[in-house]
Amino acid sequence: MTSISTHPFDSATGLTALGDGRYAGHTEAGYANMVGPFGGITAATLLSAALHDPRRLADPVALTVNFAGPVADGAFEIDAQPVRTNNATQHWIITMTQNGEVTTTATAVFGRRRDAWGSTEVTPPAVPSAADVPVTRAPGFPAWLNNYEMRFVEGGGDFLDPDAGERPDSTTTLWVRDNPVRPLDYSALAALSDVFFPRVMLRLGRMVPAGTVSLTTYFHADAELLAETTESILGTARAQHFGNGFFDQTASLWTAAGDLLATSHQVVYYKA
Amino acid sequence: MTSISTHPFDSATGLTALGDGRYAGHTEAGYANMVGPFGGITAATLLSAALHDPRRLADPVALTVNFAGPVADGAFEIDAQPVRTNNATQHWIITMTQNGEVTTTATAVFGRRRDAWGSTEVTPPAVPSAADVPVTRAPGFPAWLNNYEMRFVEGGGDFLDPDAGERPDSTTTLWVRDNPVRPLDYSALAALSDVFFPRVMLRLGRMVPAGTVSLTTYFHADAELLAETTESILGTARAQHFGNGFFDQTASLWTAAGDLLATSHQVVYYKA
Repeated sequence: MTSISTHPFDSATGLTALGDGRYAGHTEAGYANMVGPFGGITAATLLSAALHDPRRLADPVALTVNFAGPVADGAFEIDAQPVRTNNATQHWIITMTQNGEVTTTATAVFGRRRDAWGSTEVTPPAVPSAADVPVTRAPGFPAWLNNYEMRFVEGGGDFLDPDAGERPDSTTTLWVRDNPVRPLDYSALAALSDVFFPRVMLRLGRMVPAGTVSLTTYFHADAELLAETTESILGTARAQHFGNGFFDQTASLWTAAGDLLATSHQVVYYKA
Repeated sequence: MTSISTHPFDSATGLTALGDGRYAGHTEAGYANMVGPFGGITAATLLSAALHDPRRLADPVALTVNFAGPVADGAFEIDAQPVRTNNATQHWIITMTQNGEVTTTATAVFGRRRDAWGSTEVTPPAVPSAADVPVTRAPGFPAWLNNYEMRFVEGGGDFLDPDAGERPDSTTTLWVRDNPVRPLDYSALAALSDVFFPRVMLRLGRMVPAGTVSLTTYFHADAELLAETTESILGTARAQHFGNGFFDQTASLWTAAGDLLATSHQVVYYKA
């Protein structure tokens, strides 16, 4: 007999509908970060609640996730409500709670895509193809890294090396995909937009306390482009400013063919 | 007798506390856009509700505003609730309604700034000083433009010229400040982060239907830097991608001395 296996990503983002926009879920050990779950999987889970809701209109355009407090290992509840539905767009407020306390909030915008004039003004970094970049072996901790196949072109994982030293620039560029391979959809793209470890660690060359406070992703890909994207995607991220205990990060995610899948921004708390 | 005058910005963002985090306000004709109020003034008003709330902790770090539906001229109500308060950060959900219908949602993060290692990786564009750039005369319509003194360095207001033609690049760079002059604070900075007209019009060289769907601003300035900023500030914005009826914009706002005040991102609906 062959058992039907569930991909770890689908297990981690899986929810049970409780009615009236409420959903029950639980954290997955395989997506654990230093403390609590990987922020990307939390973002994907919040988006999934709206994506699976029968009231949902069209596909995601924008997602903002605010990491309000730590998520403890175990059960959580999500409340996902469409607060305004127009002809072309729909706006959601989504809240994750544990034992009645808010851990995470989100707003999501869904929108009907239509044929329109288009242009991409930015270009992906010039890089070797994914096949020509070696896979970086996941360090085993934090656990979530094992769920991604990463091939670093620039700004790799050597912050784990105590002798890495400071860098003048916070850019990381990598080829990345789910491990094991899984079709790319909006939830997976939401998680991938948070796949870059904290830029402050890359700059300082050492581990420091850091955690995303707010994450915003704009989805440029339509469903057709997502379906066509079966290989590793190219991600690049950098900080613009560090100061007073907060820094920002701006990122973009590309197909191997050079199509822009998403742009993503976040602000991160740090101590250094 | 000398009458005590209220700055138009303070009049437009002024709210009456109704208790329990609810506030009453009304649109101001002086900040009208093509349809409804200038998005920046709506963002500033939502932030002001939390800023003036006695439960508020520390200064703004991040603000996301979702323009869910049109705001009609007249009265509105704002509900602003801190959903999670930690030692160093506080998370708010803010909702604007008219006649019980949601027009706008927002999330805001406030955070205690502290001495920390810092670095700014990006640089402001090389520009002449504000005094050496002529003020562009506001066209009179839309009305909100009259509340800002704008000195365009690049990508100016000539989209109003029917012969402007297409451009290969969507960058606008300008010196800007409130008109009349007003001290810079977080609310004013929130509004200024939306001061760039829709990039699709700049690219196409003509007016097309467009409206911001979601706007996120990260505040890098602390209160001291804001208080020191008494001259025009430098803003620069560009789109990264236009397609399927949505484009994104990424912007940064700088002091004349080269300090980064804020970075801001938005996704905009358009028809073209």
